[in-house]
Amino acid sequence: MREVDLRSDTVTRPTAKMREVMAKAKVGDDVYREDPTVNKLEEKAAQALGKEAALFVPSGTMGNLLAVMTHTQPGDEIILGENSHIFCYEVGGLAKLAGVQAKTLADSSGIFSPKAMQEAIRDDNIHYPRTGLICVENTHNRAGGVAVSKVKLDDICNLAIKNNLPVHLDGARLFNAAAELEIDVKSLVKNVDSVMFCISKGLAAPVGSLLVGSKEFIMQARKNRKMLGGGMRQAGMLAAAGLVALEEMTNRIDDDHNLANKFAKLVKGLDSEMIRVRNVNTNFVILEVTDDIKGLITQLADRGVKISQFGPGLLRAVIHKDISNEDINYVVNQLVDVEGKFNE
Amino acid sequence: MREVDLRSDTVTRPTAKMREVMAKAKVGDDVYREDPTVNKLEEKAAQALGKEAALFVPSGTMGNLLAVMTHTQPGDEIILGENSHIFCYEVGGLAKLAGVQAKTLADSSGIFSPKAMQEAIRDDNIHYPRTGLICVENTHNRAGGVAVSKVKLDDICNLAIKNNLPVHLDGARLFNAAAELEIDVKSLVKNVDSVMFCISKGLAAPVGSLLVGSKEFIMQARKNRKMLGGGMRQAGMLAAAGLVALEEMTNRIDDDHNLANKFAKLVKGLDSEMIRVRNVNTNFVILEVTDDIKGLITQLADRGVKISQFGPGLLRAVIHKDISNEDINYVVNQLVDVEGKFNE
Amino acid sequence: MREVDLRSDTVTRPTAKMREVMAKAKVGDDVYREDPTVNKLEEKAAQALGKEAALFVPSGTMGNLLAVMTHTQPGDEIILGENSHIFCYEVGGLAKLAGVQAKTLADSSGIFSPKAMQEAIRDDNIHYPRTGLICVENTHNRAGGVAVSKVKLDDICNLAIKNNLPVHLDGARLFNAAAELEIDVKSLVKNVDSVMFCISKGLAAPVGSLLVGSKEFIMQARKNRKMLGGGMRQAGMLAAAGLVALEEMTNRIDDDHNLANKFAKLVKGLDSEMIRVRNVNTNFVILEVTDDIKGLITQLADRGVKISQFGPGLLRAVIHKDISNEDINYVVNQLVDVEGKFNE
Amino acid sequence: MREVDLRSDTVTRPTAKMREVMAKAKVGDDVYREDPTVNKLEEKAAQALGKEAALFVPSGTMGNLLAVMTHTQPGDEIILGENSHIFCYEVGGLAKLAGVQAKTLADSSGIFSPKAMQEAIRDDNIHYPRTGLICVENTHNRAGGVAVSKVKLDDICNLAIKNNLPVHLDGARLFNAAAELEIDVKSLVKNVDSVMFCISKGLAAPVGSLLVGSKEFIMQARKNRKMLGGGMRQAGMLAAAGLVALEEMTNRIDDDHNLANKFAKLVKGLDSEMIRVRNVNTNFVILEVTDDIKGLITQLADRGVKISQFGPGLLRAVIHKDISNEDINYVVNQLVDVEGKFNE
Repeated sequence: MREVDLRSDTVTRPTAKMREVMAKAKVGDDVYREDPTVNKLEEKAAQALGKEAALFVPSGTMGNLLAVMTHTQPGDEIILGENSHIFCYEVGGLAKLAGVQAKTLADSSGIFSPKAMQEAIRDDNIHYPRTGLICVENTHNRAGGVAVSKVKLDDICNLAIKNNLPVHLDGARLFNAAAELEIDVKSLVKNVDSVMFCISKGLAAPVGSLLVGSKEFIMQARKNRKMLGGGMRQAGMLAAAGLVALEEMTNRIDDDHNLANKFAKLVKGLDSEMIRVRNVNTNFVILEVTDDIKGLITQLADRGVKISQFGPGLLRAVIHKDISNEDINYVVNQLVDVEGKFNE
Repeated sequence: MREVDLRSDTVTRPTAKMREVMAKAKVGDDVYREDPTVNKLEEKAAQALGKEAALFVPSGTMGNLLAVMTHTQPGDEIILGENSHIFCYEVGGLAKLAGVQAKTLADSSGIFSPKAMQEAIRDDNIHYPRTGLICVENTHNRAGGVAVSKVKLDDICNLAIKNNLPVHLDGARLFNAAAELEIDVKSLVKNVDSVMFCISKGLAAPVGSLLVGSKEFIMQARKNRKMLGGGMRQAGMLAAAGLVALEEMTNRIDDDHNLANKFAKLVKGLDSEMIRVRNVNTNFVILEVTDDIKGLITQLADRGVKISQFGPGLLRAVIHKDISNEDINYVVNQLVDVEGKFNE
Repeated sequence: MREVDLRSDTVTRPTAKMREVMAKAKVGDDVYREDPTVNKLEEKAAQALGKEAALFVPSGTMGNLLAVMTHTQPGDEIILGENSHIFCYEVGGLAKLAGVQAKTLADSSGIFSPKAMQEAIRDDNIHYPRTGLICVENTHNRAGGVAVSKVKLDDICNLAIKNNLPVHLDGARLFNAAAELEIDVKSLVKNVDSVMFCISKGLAAPVGSLLVGSKEFIMQARKNRKMLGGGMRQAGMLAAAGLVALEEMTNRIDDDHNLANKFAKLVKGLDSEMIRVRNVNTNFVILEVTDDIKGLITQLADRGVKISQFGPGLLRAVIHKDISNEDINYVVNQLVDVEGKFNE
Repeated sequence: MREVDLRSDTVTRPTAKMREVMAKAKVGDDVYREDPTVNKLEEKAAQALGKEAALFVPSGTMGNLLAVMTHTQPGDEIILGENSHIFCYEVGGLAKLAGVQAKTLADSSGIFSPKAMQEAIRDDNIHYPRTGLICVENTHNRAGGVAVSKVKLDDICNLAIKNNLPVHLDGARLFNAAAELEIDVKSLVKNVDSVMFCISKGLAAPVGSLLVGSKEFIMQARKNRKMLGGGMRQAGMLAAAGLVALEEMTNRIDDDHNLANKFAKLVKGLDSEMIRVRNVNTNFVILEVTDDIKGLITQLADRGVKISQFGPGLLRAVIHKDISNEDINYVVNQLVDVEGKFNE
């Protein structure tokens, strides 16, 4: 039976080229900063984003946590979207590990408004924590994979600059945003102070993310990474795949977006009672299910199709490098088949 | 010149009776639990609220912080109003000291909805912090001193019980709520697990609050109080005033509410262009100012009237035991005078 | 039956003069910094110690915790004695609340050696926390009430200056140290950056301590005090007693030390098999008990004499303002009586 | 020029076999627990140590931090050696991230005494943090690579059981200890509750460590790992090397120990004025340098020999799989040469 895993682009497997370069990677002890492949990846990542320095970390969660820990002091308040990954899906590390209070703003469109942000910034008052950081996310996962425009992002950045506040961008899927917006990543992130982006997910490397920012910021983040236990030894084995991800995989992101659109179109064409397309953004297709969503997920799983629930009555299909045109056709056929079964 | 301080009921000064009993108070070392006056106050407070035990603390902020620290574990998420005092005015201690993440819900009416609360409770998922506590506030300061009804409070409590979650009530002005609702405090707090109420503020004692709950909870909170540095020695000097507050001051809260209503009526009667009553709840009168709010605050201060800004275009006047009928008349006369000056 | 409480000087009760001034104290809302009596106490305390500013806090534990929180950042390491009160008796708040790691040094003589301190200071290394603070204690409780000489204290301070590190002095019994050393407190604390001293304990005020240091330091500590819940309202009621403590009680500390010496002499004179004087320092008399220490404590308690165990086979008797010459004679008589009973 | 890196066994590079299996590893998304190679490694690690479950983590530091976080609650005190890696070299994460206070005991022999441990365990007292965990280390790095005997380890474990306290073993070099003691690792760790051991270091895998313990413990540690950002995606790429480490590299540890002995013998044979063997334990050779240790390190570095300072007047040479017999001879020759130069 065909297996089609639409749950997330985190499931992508390394390419043959990645495996090949990993096997041959030159490595050293990265805690001593002597791993040439890690050093090269960090350099390339900083260059690609137009920042001074970068740090290789084992996950996006660690990259975001390090950004918060490094930009702020415990006891600060940070401003971020109420649907942001950092707030919703990172196990509350913000409070327990970074010691910061989260002031959350409505961001169902992908980003909060400058007006709400301005109102949320704290004055100097003995009752108030200090506002220490603004966090944004692009593409925005909970908003359905929406790419936030450079204009909207810059509005937030300009307001942050006016208030003397740093901005961190959770760019787990930064290259999806850049592809969708048809803009260079360097230009997109120009006005933020730090960015985390993943080489796993759509870029298909097996493990890791990069935290990018100023030299001073990265130097401090490196020490915080050691404290969290993110200092790895011969990490060049992983970084080698990251170099392939940066060099060869960013250009194929459009294929995922095109396939997502095609999938949405096919589902719309079904004119189904059971399932409807709610929206399609970048590599995410959000589907509405009229009833028995758990039953549908199980039926699809029995047919080799894995898909995640995204909220009450909603499914999320994520397109990635391991999903082919044939896979999409197969999924659509299964939907037809399941609906037929339901209607019997 | 007459001095009228409407900024907050925190400015109330101890009564003559309080000073008298304080001077004669029997005291001991409360860290050893040998202060008879503290012990008596804790016992009376627990009785008054129908709970097993109570703990005397130097401030409402410490009482709330202890409640959060004692009900939860660092890394938990707690659910509370986005306008709650705990979230807005307690210096971010939630995150830095208690290590919990705040999930905030809309509460401009005084309390969040059960629906929003249910949606905010986390499932068991490796990406999620555990939901550990629900916090409510009554009367609700930022909502303008609103007394939340027992029905609304109980709806939240019942949902919490269903989800096996404790509820803490920030009752800094609990006796104002009970007076307004014409209900016994014991009945009002019946379904919450812990309550903090202040003997300073409207009850006029110089210093302190009580944290009230089960024996087990208070035993653990007592140790946490020691860690925070809230363990005081001959605290019976303060507790003596607290006993007067509980015995003699709770019944006069209605006078403050009546005077607040009278003040609101008089301001409405001015039919002023400059200032309008937005609402009056318990001992709070919220006023709208059409323009130059800073100028108005200064003009009033020059006339001996202190009043706080409550947001853009809003003033808050808080009525308390040190505000008399004559004070109110004086303030209204000053408003007339200031408006005359502005119109010249 | 006579009651003699030798457990600690924390049990001292306010003097008649203190009760009198408390009853008449002018007060205001100290969170707004409008309590004239608190303001006066803070000013006098800063003057007495020759520092810029002071902050009134509800306990010595809070004063020490604030010092650590204000001098350091979470993640720092601090150097302090392995027997220090801060490390041993403050409930681990160092780690949980201030987020600092404790590097403890041998201090059974009252203070650690400059050599050990120098070795403990961390270099700059990615594996190391930053050393952020040195804490000393005078008199030193666990060392048996020892007054640490100005020379020894200054050796530590000079080394700290050389290493660009601040020094905090836990001076819970600072005036005992100054009396014993026959030195002005101002001179004694000249080279430390901050001091906490208690007005309860030997100075007999019912509640509170002062944290003293630079203006900038105290400003930040004031905000941290608010976060901990140590911001009190009409705290002038307590501060009034603190003014009496500072003005009238510091000069009588010598009486306690003399009485401690007398008590030690009398016990030595017993030439007892059961109990021997180990040492006497300031207002502490440490006694060795040859066997059944629990039994002895109980026997004394039955005769109205309260005394604390201080370790295996050791008792601590603390002399304070509520212990008279007659009390001491009574205690010695009870010891004779108890020994007689044991020998029957 | 020959390169000989004696600084640490962390510099070992993956074997050809490791590279081969990594390139072909079957992988999946380990956050979903679908990486078959990670699952297999965790299973094998648990089996090898005779425990229920294991968790793959990116570093030993994270493994130890997770153990502390999972066994304790913030505010606890833990007992560990004053020279332990956890206390000395893990950036103070204990306090900042786990919120625990460290009670350190003398352990220059490799482990603290049961007597000191018993004295350090806290009673129940309102002034005390709760003792929550005992941590030991084997082999002990700062003690010079000493293997702690099973008898000594079990004495600590038995005392811990008596006090109802868990024991965590930092076994970064566990297989070195087992080889030296000629005992099965399973037997060696039988009485500890959790173990962290590294597959990097002597076992030569590029990245990672395993945390091993009960099912319940590992389940909670897995969630804490997610919070720290240690949840990796296709981590099977690394785990594949870990399987080779466990299967093929543990048996060659003796070769490192033999070579360390040989190196020590050769250095002793030099009968040098400049450098002397202090001791040799497992794969560590500790050398005493009479003067100008910095100069010696530089001279050796110029000759391709990297070696670390281990304290004042001490060097540490660590033998590992990338050090050959020829390397050792080369190093000894360089020492002779350098000493000749110094004597000129």
